[in-house]
Amino acid sequence: METWISGTTGLLCLLGSPVGHSGSPAMYNFSFQKQKIDAAYVAFDVTKEQMPEALNAMRLFKMRGGNVTMPCKNVAATLMDELSPAAKIIGAVNVVVNDDGKLIGHITDGIGFVRNLQEHGIDIKGKHLVVLGAGGAATAIQVQAALDGAKQITIFNRQDEFYSRAESTAKKLAEAAPAVKVDVVQLENTDRLKAAIADADILVNATTVGMKPDDGVSLVDPSFLRADLVVADTVYNPLKTKLIEDAEKAGAKTAPGKGMLLWQGAAGYQLWTGQDMPVKAYQAFEEEREPDRSLV
Amino acid sequence: METWISGTTGLLCLLGSPVGHSGSPAMYNFSFQKQKIDAAYVAFDVTKEQMPEALNAMRLFKMRGGNVTMPCKNVAATLMDELSPAAKIIGAVNVVVNDDGKLIGHITDGIGFVRNLQEHGIDIKGKHLVVLGAGGAATAIQVQAALDGAKQITIFNRQDEFYSRAESTAKKLAEAAPAVKVDVVQLENTDRLKAAIADADILVNATTVGMKPDDGVSLVDPSFLRADLVVADTVYNPLKTKLIEDAEKAGAKTAPGKGMLLWQGAAGYQLWTGQDMPVKAYQAFEEEREPDRSLV
Repeated sequence: METWISGTTGLLCLLGSPVGHSGSPAMYNFSFQKQKIDAAYVAFDVTKEQMPEALNAMRLFKMRGGNVTMPCKNVAATLMDELSPAAKIIGAVNVVVNDDGKLIGHITDGIGFVRNLQEHGIDIKGKHLVVLGAGGAATAIQVQAALDGAKQITIFNRQDEFYSRAESTAKKLAEAAPAVKVDVVQLENTDRLKAAIADADILVNATTVGMKPDDGVSLVDPSFLRADLVVADTVYNPLKTKLIEDAEKAGAKTAPGKGMLLWQGAAGYQLWTGQDMPVKAYQAFEEEREPDRSLV
Repeated sequence: METWISGTTGLLCLLGSPVGHSGSPAMYNFSFQKQKIDAAYVAFDVTKEQMPEALNAMRLFKMRGGNVTMPCKNVAATLMDELSPAAKIIGAVNVVVNDDGKLIGHITDGIGFVRNLQEHGIDIKGKHLVVLGAGGAATAIQVQAALDGAKQITIFNRQDEFYSRAESTAKKLAEAAPAVKVDVVQLENTDRLKAAIADADILVNATTVGMKPDDGVSLVDPSFLRADLVVADTVYNPLKTKLIEDAEKAGAKTAPGKGMLLWQGAAGYQLWTGQDMPVKAYQAFEEEREPDRSLV
């Protein structure tokens, strides 16, 4: 029996709806215990409309911070006292740090992506990235890659309602990171996709294509892949998407989505505690216990 | 490593200041885990002025309830949607139950006192109690004993600022429990004290006399004690007060304060979960781990 929670234990929380499936409480509580940090983490199911009150409660109860998930990430950005550069450009927040009542909003999806590549021995500085997608995760990756010194980013997206978001990201990055060349291309243009991947160092699927139950599909023709390409996916269920499998067959270096998910969680942990989250210890613990658990 | 907290885990909390020394989080979290109840309990340091906001947060976060400690017990009573009979008479709340946003306030000190006596084989129905003191714990015991069918209650208190509170309690009980004879007597009147104890079934010290660091003293002359008297104390530090030691020497049945403390906590647990708290399992766990831990 564990009684690591005492009268002095500080609280952190996840805000959003739904949150019942979230693996964050298990991950963070494991890490707090492992590192003897006097904190606990729970999930609160709140609506967008309840966010102002929820953030006031975070101040009232002197919580060190928390995470924000769907559908509250955008409204959270409007309620912070301060935003990180990436959160400001993206207009969304998934990590809140409470510095004595001053709430600072961060977005760590891109940080997790960059860190996951680092863990695989890949530095994105000076690289050309092809990023598929223009949703929340895709935008976070594009912005962080630009802020962290990528040379070129080519965004491919279907001609759908997110296409203009990709164009808007390109416009914002032209201001925030003018040294980076950012292009937006229609995904339907297979020749352009082929040519971009041929020129790229890193290919990233940041769409939901390949996710269960619609796994076994990929947006990229396997013939576009090659051994000196790095292939990353944001999808982590299944652990290996068709794209990652195709990339392995082509001899490419791969970075599956589960690592990005863990490292974006670790980035929040680092912001709250100043310490590196024991990612590998938790990963081992979790795989032993429940291989398919969601961590969002 | 325990990861019993998941995305579905509900929160309960202690509100008051200070709360860092409280043993309640350890006790309740042990019990939730032991009984596989999907809940966790943390302490929040809040002032009286912050109580309206804190109780709104309890509603917002759908907490099942919580405890209230000093200095917030009285203001909490003014902020409830409904009060238990004892909480209404006493005007104080130490347990909040959140029924879908409706907050119901209870006071469980008296319930814990009565239950602790039951655990020692003593039923207070029809009994004459002598209660020393007129503070919060004393008043809760007096009111609960009256509501639970005691025959007579004689309250002794010094002629200090609490004396009028004892008189006010007597007045309220004359209305709420008219069958019970309640008298208030000055503690300085040793003859009256001796006579009342001689007539009583149960003697209760509900003052702080005998508490560390001022242990080794008692308000009652040992010669007033006898074998067929029940002697209870609300002081639990030391575990055996001088009064309890004197009573043991006189051959009396004794009920030290630690049991009352545990059972008042168990009463809250029962109100939140509908289940009996595993008091004995926790007591065994706690004594092994840290014999002197405070549980308030």
